Amino acid sequence: MSIRARRSTKKTDSGRQRRQVTEQDLMDAAVRLLGDHRSVSTLSLREIAREAGIAPNSFYRYFRDVDELTVALIDQAGRALRGIIREARQRLSMERSAIRTSVEAFMEQLDADEKYLQVLLREMSTGSDAFREAVENELTYFEDELRDELERMEKLTGHATYEPALTAKAITRLVVAMGANAANLPKDSRAALIDQTVVMIRMIMEGSQSLAKKHRRSAK
Amino acid sequence: MSIRARRSTKKTDSGRQRRQVTEQDLMDAAVRLLGDHRSVSTLSLREIAREAGIAPNSFYRYFRDVDELTVALIDQAGRALRGIIREARQRLSMERSAIRTSVEAFMEQLDADEKYLQVLLREMSTGSDAFREAVENELTYFEDELRDELERMEKLTGHATYEPALTAKAITRLVVAMGANAANLPKDSRAALIDQTVVMIRMIMEGSQSLAKKHRRSAK
Repeated sequence: MSIRARRSTKKTDSGRQRRQVTEQDLMDAAVRLLGDHRSVSTLSLREIAREAGIAPNSFYRYFRDVDELTVALIDQAGRALRGIIREARQRLSMERSAIRTSVEAFMEQLDADEKYLQVLLREMSTGSDAFREAVENELTYFEDELRDELERMEKLTGHATYEPALTAKAITRLVVAMGANAANLPKDSRAALIDQTVVMIRMIMEGSQSLAKKHRRSAK
Repeated sequence: MSIRARRSTKKTDSGRQRRQVTEQDLMDAAVRLLGDHRSVSTLSLREIAREAGIAPNSFYRYFRDVDELTVALIDQAGRALRGIIREARQRLSMERSAIRTSVEAFMEQLDADEKYLQVLLREMSTGSDAFREAVENELTYFEDELRDELERMEKLTGHATYEPALTAKAITRLVVAMGANAANLPKDSRAALIDQTVVMIRMIMEGSQSLAKKHRRSAK
């Protein structure tokens, strides 16, 4: 079930419930509990219920267990991040390149209250197989969108990309790795990391186009 | 103090010690305890001491705490991995490129008993600031070696690299990200990931050389 479907599900009040909460309230409570080093999957059901202001037993009305909540959070985080990047690209100005705008929007999320990026970065490496798989799925969605974008660009500019799917994967994985790097550094060193990431992406794009040209030449 | 210096330190037997162990024995014990999802930093001093066959109190003769042992392990893992990659490059054959040989040697480490790569991948994201910093240092050493290699290659072939340090960083971060990806997948899908990683590195190298050419032309 998607998060959107989840959120709109109305729970009927049994009358014994002290407070009416939603699945989203529980997910928000879990995110508030995330400290500097904790991943969602290390939170206890009890902690999350307390933070949301419900009895531990009421938790089960919304999620089977903390694992299910974690996967829902990963899903939501990935979806939200893609929306943010997409929006950033739409308000492109003439001075800012699409690459820089996207990287900046991504890195800004390190400081956002919603902690979408942190959820992905943490569960990617610490979580169980199910969480890693969920994160992997979100990254794949990113890659698919970027590949579509590269193919659209190819039609517009006539610059062919060598293996668009692989180019999109290289860019996505590198940006995520640089994001993880930035998350561990003081805020004032982020500007330098953004600059580095932008140049790295240019290298990949440039290399991909150059390989496509060579490939076409050798195929003739 | 470096690991090498540590290992050669002779401990004088107080006579009350049941078994003579070395710092390396304790580090090996910690690595044996690493399961599929545990990072070194989640191990308890008691567990490690038991696995090494010493009394918990004896642990302090070797390390101040588990944190100190973890940092020593990260240091050892990074050092060992660099040695393995360096060695792999030296036994280059005519059929295999330097890129493929290095990537294969790196990915093979996912199955090695020593778990060097796992130690780096886990502590990179889950550990405390001190561990992340230690991993970051190891990655920087990798990048420095690769940058030197790129600059040597540049002199040999005449192909200039655009910002060799940044090129080395892009390659290193991407290979580590793909290694983390491979670690989460079944062994039989690794060959495909190795192929992908090799193409991604070619894109970066090609892009870096192409940007260098353009830069030189526009500077004229």
